[in-house]
Amino acid sequence: MNPSDPKLKSFVPVTRDSHFPIQNLPYGVFTTPANFTPRVGVAIGELVLDLSVLEQAGLLEPVPGERVFNRPTLNAFMERGPEVWRRARETISELLRAENARLRDDAALRGRAFTSQAAAKMLLPISIPGYTDFYSSKEHATNVGSMFRDPAHALLPNWLYVPIAYNGRASSVVVSGTHVLRPNGQKKKPDAAQPVFGPSERLDFELETAFVVGVGNALGEPVSVDRASSHVFGMVLLNDWSARDLQQWEYIPLGPFNSKTFATSISPWVVTMDALEPFRVEGPAQHPPPLPYLATTGPQAYDIHLEAALAIPGKRATTIARTNFRHLYWSIAQQLAHHTASGCNTRVGDLMASGTISGPTPDSCGSLLEITKNGRTPLAIGGVERSFLEDDDELILTGWAQAKDYRVGFGEVRGKIVAARSHA
Amino acid sequence: MNPSDPKLKSFVPVTRDSHFPIQNLPYGVFTTPANFTPRVGVAIGELVLDLSVLEQAGLLEPVPGERVFNRPTLNAFMERGPEVWRRARETISELLRAENARLRDDAALRGRAFTSQAAAKMLLPISIPGYTDFYSSKEHATNVGSMFRDPAHALLPNWLYVPIAYNGRASSVVVSGTHVLRPNGQKKKPDAAQPVFGPSERLDFELETAFVVGVGNALGEPVSVDRASSHVFGMVLLNDWSARDLQQWEYIPLGPFNSKTFATSISPWVVTMDALEPFRVEGPAQHPPPLPYLATTGPQAYDIHLEAALAIPGKRATTIARTNFRHLYWSIAQQLAHHTASGCNTRVGDLMASGTISGPTPDSCGSLLEITKNGRTPLAIGGVERSFLEDDDELILTGWAQAKDYRVGFGEVRGKIVAARSHA
Repeated sequence: MNPSDPKLKSFVPVTRDSHFPIQNLPYGVFTTPANFTPRVGVAIGELVLDLSVLEQAGLLEPVPGERVFNRPTLNAFMERGPEVWRRARETISELLRAENARLRDDAALRGRAFTSQAAAKMLLPISIPGYTDFYSSKEHATNVGSMFRDPAHALLPNWLYVPIAYNGRASSVVVSGTHVLRPNGQKKKPDAAQPVFGPSERLDFELETAFVVGVGNALGEPVSVDRASSHVFGMVLLNDWSARDLQQWEYIPLGPFNSKTFATSISPWVVTMDALEPFRVEGPAQHPPPLPYLATTGPQAYDIHLEAALAIPGKRATTIARTNFRHLYWSIAQQLAHHTASGCNTRVGDLMASGTISGPTPDSCGSLLEITKNGRTPLAIGGVERSFLEDDDELILTGWAQAKDYRVGFGEVRGKIVAARSHA
Repeated sequence: MNPSDPKLKSFVPVTRDSHFPIQNLPYGVFTTPANFTPRVGVAIGELVLDLSVLEQAGLLEPVPGERVFNRPTLNAFMERGPEVWRRARETISELLRAENARLRDDAALRGRAFTSQAAAKMLLPISIPGYTDFYSSKEHATNVGSMFRDPAHALLPNWLYVPIAYNGRASSVVVSGTHVLRPNGQKKKPDAAQPVFGPSERLDFELETAFVVGVGNALGEPVSVDRASSHVFGMVLLNDWSARDLQQWEYIPLGPFNSKTFATSISPWVVTMDALEPFRVEGPAQHPPPLPYLATTGPQAYDIHLEAALAIPGKRATTIARTNFRHLYWSIAQQLAHHTASGCNTRVGDLMASGTISGPTPDSCGSLLEITKNGRTPLAIGGVERSFLEDDDELILTGWAQAKDYRVGFGEVRGKIVAARSHA
């Protein structure tokens, strides 16, 4: 049976609004209080299924004769390619089904193989050799262009032809839950004669997703838009933390640098493209038509609901943005084809983010820069105003694809702001 | 005796214009026709000294009880830090001295330990987790600003305060000798209605150096400008190949991407900062004074002569640019301090390039963009005109620090252009 079949049920309890039904099976890396060795698991309901235990028990062997799940990252598994991904997904799905007694009725094995997510510590799931951030939301590019450049020509002439991207900093990609230190940096008020160095006063989030390259390509051998799907393993939620004051002072002419390099947070669970396949939908119409190397046929977007919530100390978390991955103008296949069109090679674990995903309505903006119009219209949350993030604020991104009876979700990516390091 | 002492001589013959006297001892990774296992060596005269052989023979043990030179990269050695670097340099220097009989008179060991450079195949010497490209030559930034933006305000307001940099693509850094495939990409003529996709017609080089991080820093723990030298292992030559037509169309607002990601070439030999120390000189005066986190005392530049030569098929290589590392406005210490000031972490093997190094005179420009004024004043080489690089052209960078009786050099970084991949 197809592991995405809506009729499948697991013997593990899964509520209707859980992100992790048997149709999902996202991969992550975890430790437990009883076992500090990082290994690969999948989320199911409120549990983690330890794949290294299944491998050791001889129940899961997607790569014949080799172990790929007793590792500190997903890379060894991902680099084996789509056939191995599918074989693993089918076996894991089979083992979790309500009607399959093998794992269900083996109390000793179950005891070793399952941990509650509450008890598991999730680690960064991938080793990331390269991090690229696209800029693929037309609404976001238009909003930012209106504020920082010319409202009459908000979208730059290249934007409708080029899936614009820049290289990000891979070293500072961290997993959900990692505190985010407010960065110091150079900032200059418009009327000031010169910049000063100190804590960012315009610390922002960016609601993004990212895809993870499973199979790379060699230098000089581009991935065509039609072949992209065989290279892409899955997706995560991503918060591209941004210090707007640092960014505005530094970004011309070579793009953002210190304003972004201090931290980028991702969700601990990597949702596979196979699990997202049932949610494939048409993306925005593309006019002018893409150049031939970016031309695709058939639906290229995914219907993934996305939210950002802000938790101010002493207040309940408040949802401040609701948007959808389907609004993205450039598709994953177009992004990867463009990235490699120059001959650029990619490697297993490369992380390629969407750019801020803003929707067509004011409440669908994926950054405070846009929501508060660069601070001019602050948010009011329980009687407290927020233009940008304050110390001890926590920002939570979440997202899921909704089926009739269940959700295929990403869980959360959380990050709490801590006060800047003294620079005296 | 100090390994940089000018009076030192090796029993290995070294000519006066060799880049590799005993005062240098740069590290590289190589294989030989007889042994395909990559291992670490140092260059001396026209030979490579195999450090894995010295380690095995018990003559070299900078990390007590461990081997660090029988590896495919320098990373395991570099991450041990400055004390280990100095101990290794002293031992290797000692073993190569004319008056030391240990290696000199052991014919069997010499036979195993030495290979001619002509017979060695040099590999990429470092595993590079992150590649950053600065933009630290005031002359280059001014030249480019004049051509692409406004000659009256060529230098942007932030440039004299911020050591501007962007994240480069680490995956496509290749070692000298690797052919460079002309990239395809989007380009748009000023009078064209829309862009076209095809081979770059304005393929350029950029003459740069780069420093290599030996000891990284943790996220949230910046490296102060005073402590930078304990993190920096050495330097290489770097050619930041650039497709100017792709660059001009794509770079606003997030910086260069596909125009640079197709290849970046480095020299196979990493010259240590210890070997360059005797060539430390004052850099350019800095006005306005740098902000306190970038303030340094004492000389911060190095007197390193740099050249670019162009070899057109059927012609002899012609030197087309002569410049010097000492012209760089921002120092290595300032670059690293700025890079980490936001809290950004660095890792062993991180490569941080200078940006194109142009000097104050017309013949000291480090790119064809500047030399030919974006193609308006082509070079004439043996009766052939060149505005940008043609297929089968080879570009060769070289550089050395000149002492009275010897040179501490980088060797070369070469790259030959091969025709673009068909994109039909």
